[in-house]
Amino acid sequence: MTSIAILGGTGQQGRGLAQRFAAAGIHVTVGSRDPQRARDAVASWHHHDLVEVADNIAAVDQSDLTVLAIPFSSVDAILAELRDHFKHGSIVVDVTVPVTFAAGKMAMLEVAEGSATEHIRARLPGHVQLAAAFKTVPAHLLGSSGEPLDCDEFVCADSDEARAQAMALVQKLPGLRPVDVGPLSRARFVEHLTALAIAINRRHKIHDARFRVAGLP
Amino acid sequence: MTSIAILGGTGQQGRGLAQRFAAAGIHVTVGSRDPQRARDAVASWHHHDLVEVADNIAAVDQSDLTVLAIPFSSVDAILAELRDHFKHGSIVVDVTVPVTFAAGKMAMLEVAEGSATEHIRARLPGHVQLAAAFKTVPAHLLGSSGEPLDCDEFVCADSDEARAQAMALVQKLPGLRPVDVGPLSRARFVEHLTALAIAINRRHKIHDARFRVAGLP
Repeated sequence: MTSIAILGGTGQQGRGLAQRFAAAGIHVTVGSRDPQRARDAVASWHHHDLVEVADNIAAVDQSDLTVLAIPFSSVDAILAELRDHFKHGSIVVDVTVPVTFAAGKMAMLEVAEGSATEHIRARLPGHVQLAAAFKTVPAHLLGSSGEPLDCDEFVCADSDEARAQAMALVQKLPGLRPVDVGPLSRARFVEHLTALAIAINRRHKIHDARFRVAGLP
Repeated sequence: MTSIAILGGTGQQGRGLAQRFAAAGIHVTVGSRDPQRARDAVASWHHHDLVEVADNIAAVDQSDLTVLAIPFSSVDAILAELRDHFKHGSIVVDVTVPVTFAAGKMAMLEVAEGSATEHIRARLPGHVQLAAAFKTVPAHLLGSSGEPLDCDEFVCADSDEARAQAMALVQKLPGLRPVDVGPLSRARFVEHLTALAIAINRRHKIHDARFRVAGLP
């Protein structure tokens, strides 16, 4: 079975994913810059027996699939450090969204490549296969273990294998339906959807706005 | 009652809106650059007794609310022509999306103002109140009169009155739920959502991908 690392696994989105994967019976390695602190955090999780902690390099070294759940602002530094550690042909699933909350106002960062995903693509070795997923499921909801997710998750990739693995990963979480939206360049639309969800949350003083596609067979 | 003009009412999105409004018992004036051709088209519609045709200037002159359902590429020319004809304090509802299909590939146009809606705001007189709505409901579905719409429509505005009127207009079409997403600048997220719907349509060879928000009370 594929071994999965989650970088940024103690942040809100990463922690929610790690906990939900473990609840689905999947072993994950949480990569952290501070493994001792991460170990302390993970010790309090349900299903923590399925969660291992390692530093980022060790986590990537030993995994076939790496979930990037780090803040977008950390991407450049962390990928520079990890670049040579990805297994040949391994899969990266990008979860990041280029959103800032400067002065309490939510805005999207201008990303020269068009999206966080394409920015990351430009910084990964060519042999690594990239997909985007889990960008719109609310972090707050992911972390509320009893709550049904009950929404669609948009997956895009240029690599068929990365797409298939990301779709399969989405499907492992009860209540999520993967929706293939095509090539990696579609990530820009998905990232704007996250921003729309945040806008709806703020406008309606809720936390868990998310989307379902109607019209799919 | 508010008198409604629909500019671009013989295009796919405008026609669908005009037909659905008429089916809901609402009188509309379809504005056209070629009223005689528009009259011939409208004559074949159900409920055409509720639909009047006029040239664009006459349609705007006599209306309290104007729906802009013209192609984004026509916006500059048409607004330059109509600018001085909007009634004082009248409402404009922008339905446009800055998407192109050059060489069969769908892409979003770079709009300096950030969105088609903000581009239009910059070209309307200050006294006109602008809202964005009906940007994500599929034109193909709007035009299939028997089909339930069954989705959410995202509304944004800086003017409370424009927002309220656009929300009310959305609510008049059975199967549509208006979702307020905040200020006019949110239009950029909504327009990307339309692009995502088109991407999903193309990927899945369907026509009517649309969205529902989960998590709203």
